[in-house]
Amino acid sequence: MAKVKAAVMDKVNGEIKVEIKEFPDPALEEGAVLLKTVYSEVCGTDVHLSQGQLAEVPYPIIPGHINVGIIEKINGNVCDIEGNVFRVGDVVTFLDVHETCNRCWYCLVAKTTTRCPNRKVYGITYSARDGLLGGWSERIYLKPGVKIIKLPPQLQPMDFIAGGCGAPTGLHAVERASIKLDDTVVIQGSGSVGLSAAIFSILGGAGTVIVVDPAVNRLEIARQMGVDYTIGEASEEGRVNAVLDVTDGRGADVTIEASGNPKAVSEGMDITRNNGTYVIVGQYTDAGDVSINPHWQVNKKHLDIRGTWGIDYSHIHRSVRLMAKHSERFSWRKWISKVYSLDEVERALNDVENLRVMKAAIAPNGEF
Amino acid sequence: MAKVKAAVMDKVNGEIKVEIKEFPDPALEEGAVLLKTVYSEVCGTDVHLSQGQLAEVPYPIIPGHINVGIIEKINGNVCDIEGNVFRVGDVVTFLDVHETCNRCWYCLVAKTTTRCPNRKVYGITYSARDGLLGGWSERIYLKPGVKIIKLPPQLQPMDFIAGGCGAPTGLHAVERASIKLDDTVVIQGSGSVGLSAAIFSILGGAGTVIVVDPAVNRLEIARQMGVDYTIGEASEEGRVNAVLDVTDGRGADVTIEASGNPKAVSEGMDITRNNGTYVIVGQYTDAGDVSINPHWQVNKKHLDIRGTWGIDYSHIHRSVRLMAKHSERFSWRKWISKVYSLDEVERALNDVENLRVMKAAIAPNGEF
Amino acid sequence: MAKVKAAVMDKVNGEIKVEIKEFPDPALEEGAVLLKTVYSEVCGTDVHLSQGQLAEVPYPIIPGHINVGIIEKINGNVCDIEGNVFRVGDVVTFLDVHETCNRCWYCLVAKTTTRCPNRKVYGITYSARDGLLGGWSERIYLKPGVKIIKLPPQLQPMDFIAGGCGAPTGLHAVERASIKLDDTVVIQGSGSVGLSAAIFSILGGAGTVIVVDPAVNRLEIARQMGVDYTIGEASEEGRVNAVLDVTDGRGADVTIEASGNPKAVSEGMDITRNNGTYVIVGQYTDAGDVSINPHWQVNKKHLDIRGTWGIDYSHIHRSVRLMAKHSERFSWRKWISKVYSLDEVERALNDVENLRVMKAAIAPNGEF
Amino acid sequence: MAKVKAAVMDKVNGEIKVEIKEFPDPALEEGAVLLKTVYSEVCGTDVHLSQGQLAEVPYPIIPGHINVGIIEKINGNVCDIEGNVFRVGDVVTFLDVHETCNRCWYCLVAKTTTRCPNRKVYGITYSARDGLLGGWSERIYLKPGVKIIKLPPQLQPMDFIAGGCGAPTGLHAVERASIKLDDTVVIQGSGSVGLSAAIFSILGGAGTVIVVDPAVNRLEIARQMGVDYTIGEASEEGRVNAVLDVTDGRGADVTIEASGNPKAVSEGMDITRNNGTYVIVGQYTDAGDVSINPHWQVNKKHLDIRGTWGIDYSHIHRSVRLMAKHSERFSWRKWISKVYSLDEVERALNDVENLRVMKAAIAPNGEF
Repeated sequence: MAKVKAAVMDKVNGEIKVEIKEFPDPALEEGAVLLKTVYSEVCGTDVHLSQGQLAEVPYPIIPGHINVGIIEKINGNVCDIEGNVFRVGDVVTFLDVHETCNRCWYCLVAKTTTRCPNRKVYGITYSARDGLLGGWSERIYLKPGVKIIKLPPQLQPMDFIAGGCGAPTGLHAVERASIKLDDTVVIQGSGSVGLSAAIFSILGGAGTVIVVDPAVNRLEIARQMGVDYTIGEASEEGRVNAVLDVTDGRGADVTIEASGNPKAVSEGMDITRNNGTYVIVGQYTDAGDVSINPHWQVNKKHLDIRGTWGIDYSHIHRSVRLMAKHSERFSWRKWISKVYSLDEVERALNDVENLRVMKAAIAPNGEF
Repeated sequence: MAKVKAAVMDKVNGEIKVEIKEFPDPALEEGAVLLKTVYSEVCGTDVHLSQGQLAEVPYPIIPGHINVGIIEKINGNVCDIEGNVFRVGDVVTFLDVHETCNRCWYCLVAKTTTRCPNRKVYGITYSARDGLLGGWSERIYLKPGVKIIKLPPQLQPMDFIAGGCGAPTGLHAVERASIKLDDTVVIQGSGSVGLSAAIFSILGGAGTVIVVDPAVNRLEIARQMGVDYTIGEASEEGRVNAVLDVTDGRGADVTIEASGNPKAVSEGMDITRNNGTYVIVGQYTDAGDVSINPHWQVNKKHLDIRGTWGIDYSHIHRSVRLMAKHSERFSWRKWISKVYSLDEVERALNDVENLRVMKAAIAPNGEF
Repeated sequence: MAKVKAAVMDKVNGEIKVEIKEFPDPALEEGAVLLKTVYSEVCGTDVHLSQGQLAEVPYPIIPGHINVGIIEKINGNVCDIEGNVFRVGDVVTFLDVHETCNRCWYCLVAKTTTRCPNRKVYGITYSARDGLLGGWSERIYLKPGVKIIKLPPQLQPMDFIAGGCGAPTGLHAVERASIKLDDTVVIQGSGSVGLSAAIFSILGGAGTVIVVDPAVNRLEIARQMGVDYTIGEASEEGRVNAVLDVTDGRGADVTIEASGNPKAVSEGMDITRNNGTYVIVGQYTDAGDVSINPHWQVNKKHLDIRGTWGIDYSHIHRSVRLMAKHSERFSWRKWISKVYSLDEVERALNDVENLRVMKAAIAPNGEF
Repeated sequence: MAKVKAAVMDKVNGEIKVEIKEFPDPALEEGAVLLKTVYSEVCGTDVHLSQGQLAEVPYPIIPGHINVGIIEKINGNVCDIEGNVFRVGDVVTFLDVHETCNRCWYCLVAKTTTRCPNRKVYGITYSARDGLLGGWSERIYLKPGVKIIKLPPQLQPMDFIAGGCGAPTGLHAVERASIKLDDTVVIQGSGSVGLSAAIFSILGGAGTVIVVDPAVNRLEIARQMGVDYTIGEASEEGRVNAVLDVTDGRGADVTIEASGNPKAVSEGMDITRNNGTYVIVGQYTDAGDVSINPHWQVNKKHLDIRGTWGIDYSHIHRSVRLMAKHSERFSWRKWISKVYSLDEVERALNDVENLRVMKAAIAPNGEF
């Protein structure tokens, strides 16, 4: 194709807006792959990007960090991590995180690659000046070394994009939670991270899974998924009491915060039992402070609190495989309220921000 | 003896005061042991008790939870956990925590005996109405089943009481910290919990140990013990920068809060590296709230935070053995600024509260 | 009732045989409970007991360690671990392990109660001389402090007894295995421990579960349960290759040995991937030695091997709850090939030994 | 220099021998570094290499995997993992393991880089045909990306080479052992891996460290290092009893096998307590099989066994720092019995094989 259309989010005079721009069809360096985009997602992070709430974003950017596409061109021999060679026509996704360096203190001594200072993320920390490095675009340029995964045949692109970044992020949160068989797990928040964390808690051994969200519109989805209880009380006191009611008065063995609201952090400590585990994954942007009481809420509770940042390759690898295996059971595609064209991304952002949709997909090349 | 003198802390008309009272010499039930007290300690908790800052304390109480004594009487065959029989004349200590039930959900399913609801603590949650159940007394009544430990010959009573409750508590905190070989460990606070945590960090594999305390008077002791750096800056910013300066700008692998100041909790998050571990052990009483930013200080940092409550038998068992082995190297007895008689406990409380002494011992029967 | 009939296994002149004997209806000490037995089980351990393959068994014994019964009498106030009072008529099970002491080095320092030297087991290490302390009896005497669990209404006695001791043992093995989400788990052996381990692996996050057993008669049950692959090759080489074929040539992330055959241990190392985890739970009796190569099978593989002995209360607590929740999905009752009367226990033993039945239940009081 | 002399180990007609050969002074590609060798070591692996006991070795090779050298040339900007630029004249060591790929299943999903199939090791799995890729050479060619570490000023090259590969390997073994404060640790074998494991056990929290070796000549060194007990009994029974004698009859909390003798594996299980941890690190080459009893030695013991293969960057990073900090306390240099020239490597191999020296260093450019 001669020109590639992409939605570019730029900051002009301190104001952020999205415009469709045209880019030249890129030449591929050795080891690079060009994807024809099938779906990209619009997630809460994209709303935050459109409001300037993330630090160090190199505007202009092409948003869209989790994506599905069809391989259109390959320069050279490109394999997945098991050595399977990719072919033109393969339906694939890829790890948005790239350039984790494997030569710094965080990669090699701390073994915490999600905090590697060289790490870059498609759709968030790559600039549009550097190429087609986001999914709100007709084509996505996969740099050499980007980790590509072929979608298993049981996993439809629509199912995959519905889980979106919430799926590997939720899996990472559940991995951090060290759920024991029969544990009671409370999820705070019913966005795609929260619902994914609920699914992986069910699959990961929880005996009881409870989803709490005062914005009750997605609790029905949670119930359909097989969650044991949903709690939509409007008041903090009401929610805390409702959790205690169904946990023998002790609170949850494990709580996973996936709400993004700082106040949820204090509430989450209150609904977790003594010596329980509290995973905080939803505070992806700075939405303010919260006051806690370290005596009652941490020390005397003998609580474990685990912040969870980003994902690494293992999380998307495992989540794609589990989504394929359980695609009928959980029917992720039902989360997609609406598929938007590239021209409609502003509306999609607005719908996501106002919770008018559960999950919005972008189809830059039209329906799949 | 006909009568036993003890210092009793009582709440009269809402005011707490300490008085010397006489108790009858107790008859021993089967399996009970009577100690002639050698030393008891005065720790921060005793100050808090004298100020009414702990919940659910059954005043009047005989304070003094960690103690050394000489066995004066035994009713029956009483053994340590390895089956060694105790004899009159043995110099012993004992686990202040008693009645952990081994039949409740916390004991049996959660395996968190420090949160067992039946748990009682000598000197804190036993009432003087129930007997000589605290160490500020000429005699201590050890109920059947109390876990007694003979002091190894290398461990002088004065060394043991100098470590006091800080030693097993510090060991527990270090156990929670999962220190890796060569880790950099920062301790916030240089009371006996903090200095004990520093010692067990040195013994437990830390490559660099740093003690931070704006109240600088004990930092010299920390340095003599072999701590690598001490930081006494008056301002929070100064302390944070000083820690970053000696940790390649990254912060500590492990931070242990042993200060009791709620504000230390936010500071502790700032001086811990990304994906580091932060153990909160010093918030033993409710000294107020603290404001934190869950995005920057927990989520993005991928931080592990571990509240640490109380001790179980293993902690005092291990700490007594390690103190015996390293008594020359660390000379705990130097921490004892002054030994007080029973009549002087109010002054001892006052001296501890105002940091005029590093550690105060009570000798209810005079010098050992 | 005037007399209680029980099947007693005794060793006479070096030979072990089972006879029905009559016992007096026992008087209950304070805190004791008398059960009218609904079902007991016949498991591999009972076969081993009848062949004298366990050390230190105090023959004569009343076998039957996992049991369901109806409470017939209670002396005093007896509660479960959450404080719920038991009533006559309740349908209950109980932890066969008793007298774990909570005052020895293993209980208190190592925190390994399954290796407490004071531990006793109903049906195995209690003698018939001490009372009705096994399930092959019309009544079972529950000593004060025995941990009793009310069966949830969703869990039929027949489902519970079908899982039998295999259920909590399998859960313990899976707990030791630390399965990560999407792991591939191989189970060696398809007895009730093996199939239970397969179920708890499915519930506990495995992406792929494979059951291997050259005795192929139970593999059909495994497939019905939802296991992904079953392997029944007659030769070791054939089984190893079959596992490698379905694990990308790497072997399993986790292997659980539940076969009891010492040779399975060497084979299990070969079918586990580098740095995988190998849980050995099936070697409950001494069935001989096995030769291994520590270089190729352990050291170079960077393998984790975890022996797993017995159960504690948490395992039966969690397994009863999960069985109740998933009773329809896994229909344990289908494992029961036949219910035997007390008079038929010898035949039951013979049928179990010769794998003529998957699982045998004893109904000492006739059909439930 | 015009020509570089190196000792080359080659296999000619099935026989392995070492010869001094000359290589051209290599040109450096971008990012490469040339070291003037100060010391290389001769370790047990080199003896095994000279006897053909390792699989897949690409003879001819230049042995010598752990080395110290002075930077002679650098092509471009080469940094350590913290970004410090190297300069000509720096005294450095480097991680012998290279080319761990960061793009395969083992690196990215299992996160077990020591089992990455692309991994290469200087002095072992690189061929002399590929360049100066081993330390028994006047110069060592460090390929781009090799992880280089500047020796801290407190760590003399002689101290570092004395620890040799044993230091990071011992540290890795101790890391796998998860030593708790006051644990009793038994080390089997008193070669450099064993003694290093003893040192890191002392530094890592052990309360009691015991070194067992029937070849008693190095036990004196162990005692000087501060080990609590050494056991040199000639018979297996004698050694087992001696360990039980000093461990209250229970055996060690942690045992680390560093002997290389397959029979030590069965003995190691016997001297480890119930639910103890047994780390197997010494079986680096295939020295045969061993017979074990999985019932008594693994299952009933509830034992944890952890194979330990190789090292990654973190192990050498941490071990260099700890050796620098404790160089006076442990005086590694005393382990070096003799420094050999390049011409003497055959004799060095012979001396190491016959335990005539504790540790042999090669100084290819003469005394430092």
